[in-house]
Amino acid sequence: MTAVGIDAIEIWTGKLRLDLPNTFAPEMGEDPEKYTKGLGLESSSFPDVYEDIVTMGANAAKQLMDRKGLTPDDIGRIDVATESAFDNSKPVSTYIAGCLEQVYDGDFHHANKGERKFACLAGTQSIDDAYNWIKAGRNRGRAALVIATDTALYERDDPGEATQGAGAVAMLITENPSIVELSTEQGYGSADETDFLKPNQQFPSVDGKRSVQVYLARMREALEDYESVSGDTHPDDFEYIPFHTPFPGMVRKAAVLGYRHMTRDTEIEDELTSEIGRQPREADFESREEYTEAIRDYMDDLKGMDQYREWYAETIEPTLSISRNVGNWYTGSVHIARLSALRHALERGEELAGQQMLVGSYGSGAQAEVHAETIVDGWTEHVEAVEVEDQLARRYDISFDEYELVHDVHNHEKEVDVEAFTTPEAEFVFTGWGRMNERRYEYVE
Amino acid sequence: MTAVGIDAIEIWTGKLRLDLPNTFAPEMGEDPEKYTKGLGLESSSFPDVYEDIVTMGANAAKQLMDRKGLTPDDIGRIDVATESAFDNSKPVSTYIAGCLEQVYDGDFHHANKGERKFACLAGTQSIDDAYNWIKAGRNRGRAALVIATDTALYERDDPGEATQGAGAVAMLITENPSIVELSTEQGYGSADETDFLKPNQQFPSVDGKRSVQVYLARMREALEDYESVSGDTHPDDFEYIPFHTPFPGMVRKAAVLGYRHMTRDTEIEDELTSEIGRQPREADFESREEYTEAIRDYMDDLKGMDQYREWYAETIEPTLSISRNVGNWYTGSVHIARLSALRHALERGEELAGQQMLVGSYGSGAQAEVHAETIVDGWTEHVEAVEVEDQLARRYDISFDEYELVHDVHNHEKEVDVEAFTTPEAEFVFTGWGRMNERRYEYVE
Repeated sequence: MTAVGIDAIEIWTGKLRLDLPNTFAPEMGEDPEKYTKGLGLESSSFPDVYEDIVTMGANAAKQLMDRKGLTPDDIGRIDVATESAFDNSKPVSTYIAGCLEQVYDGDFHHANKGERKFACLAGTQSIDDAYNWIKAGRNRGRAALVIATDTALYERDDPGEATQGAGAVAMLITENPSIVELSTEQGYGSADETDFLKPNQQFPSVDGKRSVQVYLARMREALEDYESVSGDTHPDDFEYIPFHTPFPGMVRKAAVLGYRHMTRDTEIEDELTSEIGRQPREADFESREEYTEAIRDYMDDLKGMDQYREWYAETIEPTLSISRNVGNWYTGSVHIARLSALRHALERGEELAGQQMLVGSYGSGAQAEVHAETIVDGWTEHVEAVEVEDQLARRYDISFDEYELVHDVHNHEKEVDVEAFTTPEAEFVFTGWGRMNERRYEYVE
Repeated sequence: MTAVGIDAIEIWTGKLRLDLPNTFAPEMGEDPEKYTKGLGLESSSFPDVYEDIVTMGANAAKQLMDRKGLTPDDIGRIDVATESAFDNSKPVSTYIAGCLEQVYDGDFHHANKGERKFACLAGTQSIDDAYNWIKAGRNRGRAALVIATDTALYERDDPGEATQGAGAVAMLITENPSIVELSTEQGYGSADETDFLKPNQQFPSVDGKRSVQVYLARMREALEDYESVSGDTHPDDFEYIPFHTPFPGMVRKAAVLGYRHMTRDTEIEDELTSEIGRQPREADFESREEYTEAIRDYMDDLKGMDQYREWYAETIEPTLSISRNVGNWYTGSVHIARLSALRHALERGEELAGQQMLVGSYGSGAQAEVHAETIVDGWTEHVEAVEVEDQLARRYDISFDEYELVHDVHNHEKEVDVEAFTTPEAEFVFTGWGRMNERRYEYVE
């Protein structure tokens, strides 16, 4: 069977940066460590006045096309994943294609464009659709461009305000990919949940506590479903495990649950028995509640074990480095986790070709998806080419007062006139509204 | 290669009916023939007070599952296509799965749920995703449930008000399907267009004239793209050609364009030469404008020819019967056109197995998709089982005053308290809003 997977990745961060411990926390009257230690966040990205999900997505896509030397004829499919759409009918992919057609010869008239929505999960779902399209023999030798783009804003003073972020990830899905091959096997854990939603609202209604529970419950279900087709998993199987990262603290919770699940009935459980006992088995308990309580206690103990801490430091921590500095990119979040891991491996000179990652995606509402990715020969060159540090470093640091203005600028219900904080160069920008309320864009040299 | 296609279809119409020539036209001070002759419409469907895109979709899906004797375990994927979503994050498919889980044993926790948006095109895109998923070998023997559900409302006094409608189409996509097998070949015609959009609005901004032009231009492009992979098409190749039908009058325009394109350089063009001349060739004209003008004149003549009229009566007219009585169902529209054709063939006792249809889907914004479908043995039984007449006949006829109330009920910006016009029975109903603004549903025995 032909290998299908990710051939190239590019990111585009919103060009403004809010320092969470130093700028945001003091104004909120909070301990800076709530951010750095609790949530695991240093700063968030915000879009400048002339940026939005279209410009960020188009700019990431243009970087990708330029680096790979692609023309519109090479692309047979453009799928955008977002939960920040500003139109209930016209998909964001048409706006992005319109931007790209301003700068390339040729057009995307024979490319299938689409838009997927499922909270933070739709980026992975779009990759899956692209994979299936190629495997079904419908791509005519062409690649799919998948763009996950979001502006994650919360109501002012909502607890979620601490985890905001904005950026886009563009990925090229091809046959014989240069970075990772995707597994045919997938696991799903999915239920109708009211944890986080945006009913006719731009900003979400969130039940924070429920959202954490649902993330963990659906992820466990997805892992079990994945194992039902791929066989049991073991911590040694995977070099890295990128999870959806609303904030790094959430991933700490998911990681211990995953480790506990994967080590059950393995030599690792045996090794740990003398220190923390064996894992609780549901059959040994009178009620589901008692069992859950015992599992929780076991996981609390597990977190302190060297075996776990080493595994976490090697397998999970490296996935969090970009997220820590940009906040939640919603649909793009799990994809910057993968990129963080690969960049970490590159810096360390790790030989990853042939090794596997397990990828745990999640969207509120709610659904988790688990699949494996095999890193392929030549990945270093393609990961090295992704410019991350410079982009993050170039961001303009906003004050708290500026943050308040920026939040208003991107609030669909407010009309405010704010000067841009940065000067656009060699990028797509939002230029205003047209006569049918359409958003308009131009490329600035 | 395994055949993949549509194994079952069910529809659910909004339970209210507005008579266009007799109730709507007089109140608008218009000639009833504007509706019956111009637009080709007799009546439109509207949702009752307790109906919305979730209830209509869930009710269509339940009918389908019941008729096919399916349980949740048989379903590996639930994709909803809509441009009437009421949530920017949580997909409609989770609400529908939540409804179905109220009435079936078991659950859909391992089914991939999603939502696609591209104006009226997303239903077909969702079928394509399901096809690709099965062809990619990821379905584990399970079927995909694709649900196209919409409430097509326009601002009061917008010209589009004449073409409203509401309903859902549920389709089961499987290996070795019982109704039609889909072609691997697809054609796309797609461009960034501002013809119809809903920027942060429930009701569309429409440029009616442009929308017609764009529909035709993208459809021609998609047909050419399809021919580039499948070879030239000929009118004799297809028993029926279901098009996206915003209103039957639009399909009249698309049909003549398609016929003109398919007959170029064929014996049909030769036969017609003595009466209306040969088709204009672009090379013979000084400018694109003159050529376009000449093509338009040729098509005007073509419409009067017996060859064309017979072809239209046999191939196109039968696709319009449901649409004529329910209005525009947006994502579901092309799928009721297919169903209309198959029901027509069934009534006539036509032997269709092995014959082909060409399906022309379209979404504003804009993109057309063309693919072929081969009708398979045993289709009659599965088409016969779809209950259409009774559903349409059971609708409650609303007066103009009632129509005004119904429009307000479904306007997200209005809060009005209106009594239901019908009594729900054996169906899902909307019961009100929850504490996080989520919409809540129940099954009524």
